[in-house]
Amino acid sequence: MSRPLRIGIAGLGTVGASAAGILQRKANAIVPKAGRSIVVTGVSARSRGKDRGFDLEGIAWFDDPAELAASDEIDVFVELIGGANGPAKAAVEAALAAGKHVVTANKALLATHGNALACLADASGLAIGFEAAVAGGIPIIKTVREAASANTINRVFGILNGTCNYILTRMEEEGLEFDECLKDAQALGYAEADPTADIEGHDSAHKLALLASIVFGSEVDLNSIYLEGISAISQEDLRAADELGYRIKLLGVAQRTEQGIEQRVTPAMLPKSAPMARVAGVLNAVAVDGDAFGEITMVGAGAGGDATASAVVSDIVDIARGRFSPALGIPAESLTPVSRSGMQAHAGAYYVRLNVYDRPGALAGIATRMAESGISLESIMQKGRGETGSQTPLPVTIITHNTMEEHIREALARIEADGHIEGRPQMIRIEKA
Amino acid sequence: MSRPLRIGIAGLGTVGASAAGILQRKANAIVPKAGRSIVVTGVSARSRGKDRGFDLEGIAWFDDPAELAASDEIDVFVELIGGANGPAKAAVEAALAAGKHVVTANKALLATHGNALACLADASGLAIGFEAAVAGGIPIIKTVREAASANTINRVFGILNGTCNYILTRMEEEGLEFDECLKDAQALGYAEADPTADIEGHDSAHKLALLASIVFGSEVDLNSIYLEGISAISQEDLRAADELGYRIKLLGVAQRTEQGIEQRVTPAMLPKSAPMARVAGVLNAVAVDGDAFGEITMVGAGAGGDATASAVVSDIVDIARGRFSPALGIPAESLTPVSRSGMQAHAGAYYVRLNVYDRPGALAGIATRMAESGISLESIMQKGRGETGSQTPLPVTIITHNTMEEHIREALARIEADGHIEGRPQMIRIEKA
Repeated sequence: MSRPLRIGIAGLGTVGASAAGILQRKANAIVPKAGRSIVVTGVSARSRGKDRGFDLEGIAWFDDPAELAASDEIDVFVELIGGANGPAKAAVEAALAAGKHVVTANKALLATHGNALACLADASGLAIGFEAAVAGGIPIIKTVREAASANTINRVFGILNGTCNYILTRMEEEGLEFDECLKDAQALGYAEADPTADIEGHDSAHKLALLASIVFGSEVDLNSIYLEGISAISQEDLRAADELGYRIKLLGVAQRTEQGIEQRVTPAMLPKSAPMARVAGVLNAVAVDGDAFGEITMVGAGAGGDATASAVVSDIVDIARGRFSPALGIPAESLTPVSRSGMQAHAGAYYVRLNVYDRPGALAGIATRMAESGISLESIMQKGRGETGSQTPLPVTIITHNTMEEHIREALARIEADGHIEGRPQMIRIEKA
Repeated sequence: MSRPLRIGIAGLGTVGASAAGILQRKANAIVPKAGRSIVVTGVSARSRGKDRGFDLEGIAWFDDPAELAASDEIDVFVELIGGANGPAKAAVEAALAAGKHVVTANKALLATHGNALACLADASGLAIGFEAAVAGGIPIIKTVREAASANTINRVFGILNGTCNYILTRMEEEGLEFDECLKDAQALGYAEADPTADIEGHDSAHKLALLASIVFGSEVDLNSIYLEGISAISQEDLRAADELGYRIKLLGVAQRTEQGIEQRVTPAMLPKSAPMARVAGVLNAVAVDGDAFGEITMVGAGAGGDATASAVVSDIVDIARGRFSPALGIPAESLTPVSRSGMQAHAGAYYVRLNVYDRPGALAGIATRMAESGISLESIMQKGRGETGSQTPLPVTIITHNTMEEHIREALARIEADGHIEGRPQMIRIEKA
């Protein structure tokens, strides 16, 4: 039996406290899995007094996380501080410089500085475990980094943000508007006081950037991700989706196309028959399309202290066993720059909702603009027509056949310029299941 | 860069040929993932002449798989011969004795001799990779062996046999009888000429025995699995299930109960709302309930040459990287005997279908017997009543509330003895989703 593996944890919120608790309570059960005992020897957090449900006896306290990271008392530095820069980054750099393995749940940090940190770790043969950073308890990093080795991955996509999925599920099931569901999510602790990172898709983009890097062997490149949040999704869209046989989900998608790698986080319509369309509430789901193993879909808790701590502990046990490899799957120096395929080249079907003034020729004008851009329509639906000549615009929903984003954007810009519609057109991409 | 990892493959059927092909075709892409090159240096199969779609040039041919296994030409022995005993067992033993890592898709071998083989491997610090033995391309072994380290697992269950799921799906969707669907499955190559291992549940039991060993830290114990196949499932059952809101699946379930570990492979009714109820055709699915990560469900291809080869190659890459640990998750010497909870103690709800003679008092007699055994009924449904006194028995379907298996068996034995029913009662367990 090797000597104990010594763990330093910086950040004792719900995840950190849960991880420390698991390591203490289950110490005996973990030994045969890890091949050695694992002990928490140091911690760092903002407030020292708080009862966090685990035993601080005999654990060294550090006010400065970077000092803990570099301390001789630890072998593995667990970073649960959060934030792309500041103390989290400084502490992780200090840990790697001092020859400590790193385990982190910090998607923002890795999405922003992942390439540089992976280079540092690789240079010293150190692990950066970040299973906890993507989809919580679902072992998707292990799956794409290790289980998928035989595969050329064509697409990875998923519901990567439980907050958005909770909001969309409640909007759909209860007919509530976005603002109301967001407030409930905040009251339940699913959403932050400032919910921007979740609802505008930044959190999903961080996770997608990490997944995309591993599956395509490319550098982590947050800037190449096209982003749309869910705040513009309305009850009209959800009702139309339902009638047309779709559900609306905030999806992160990274896919190989003939033009390169397309990465996007947007609301998307999924056929109701798709397994992922049924993933409700705060759950996460990720699907990986490989040329050898086909499509593998994984569903589970994407957040929560215990689920995220479970991923942290599994990374620690992997390190204890020596079961690790370059952080991003292949040596960071072998990662290629993203060959980016921009959204203009996105190919697929679209849902479009327009508020059309009830004038003679309006619908014909819209159909003509679509045709001029080479877009053929699968369906066009107008509802609630009152007396002709009413001043209230009527909602028209359109489903297109496969087309390209630049064509649909061109058509919608012309339709808007023609003055037939009130407000901006709504456009939601339809994702092939 | 380390020296190449040399692979010997015994058995060049669809899986072996696909694995060799992937290792050759994707050699360059695999190097950075594996940290070294991986080359097939030896093979063994029954017929030498056949074109298998990969290049045999420079690869040593062995007529005897055990000779390949012990050869100085290889570092890892890949066993794709099949069978619980005979040449597969001899070759794997020879490989371990000669200090070679083993990768295998052979669930029968490991379900039968897994403890002894794991002891051999552990004693020499060798890997036995068997991701390919359970649920094909789904990385469920990696998940329970590595990703679940922080968890106490309460239940693992799944659709572990694609042949049965194909048959049940077609029966359900097209109203066909079992025999017809089985013939189609055979014609499509989904079922063997002798389909016993699939349809009677033995194949699922092999897989369940391996999963249960890892999740409960217990010895592989095929004999403690209770087994029922799907050949007795009829259209009446599928129609009744549909009306009652269920789907019928052949499920392998291993769960922790107060009495010990319950392991069973039986047809089971799942609520239609359960994610696994919607897994159709030849797909597999596995769900793991852990106290930290909650329930994780994985769905994917459970068979097929490429999906299974994908798992074989991922095990090989793990070995190349040194990412392995004891075969059954913890050292084989630490595995405990299964503390078996027998089926008599199974707790749950039941579906019962009886062909009841249309006599005064028959239904009352049945209800009384149920009550005598302390079973309360959620519903009782009688269909198709013609004129009273008809000689044709009428189907009666019953859903019980939670009870114990010994009670339902007692009640059904008495009902049978009372002479109110024609033939044997049908009984299907309802699985909590």
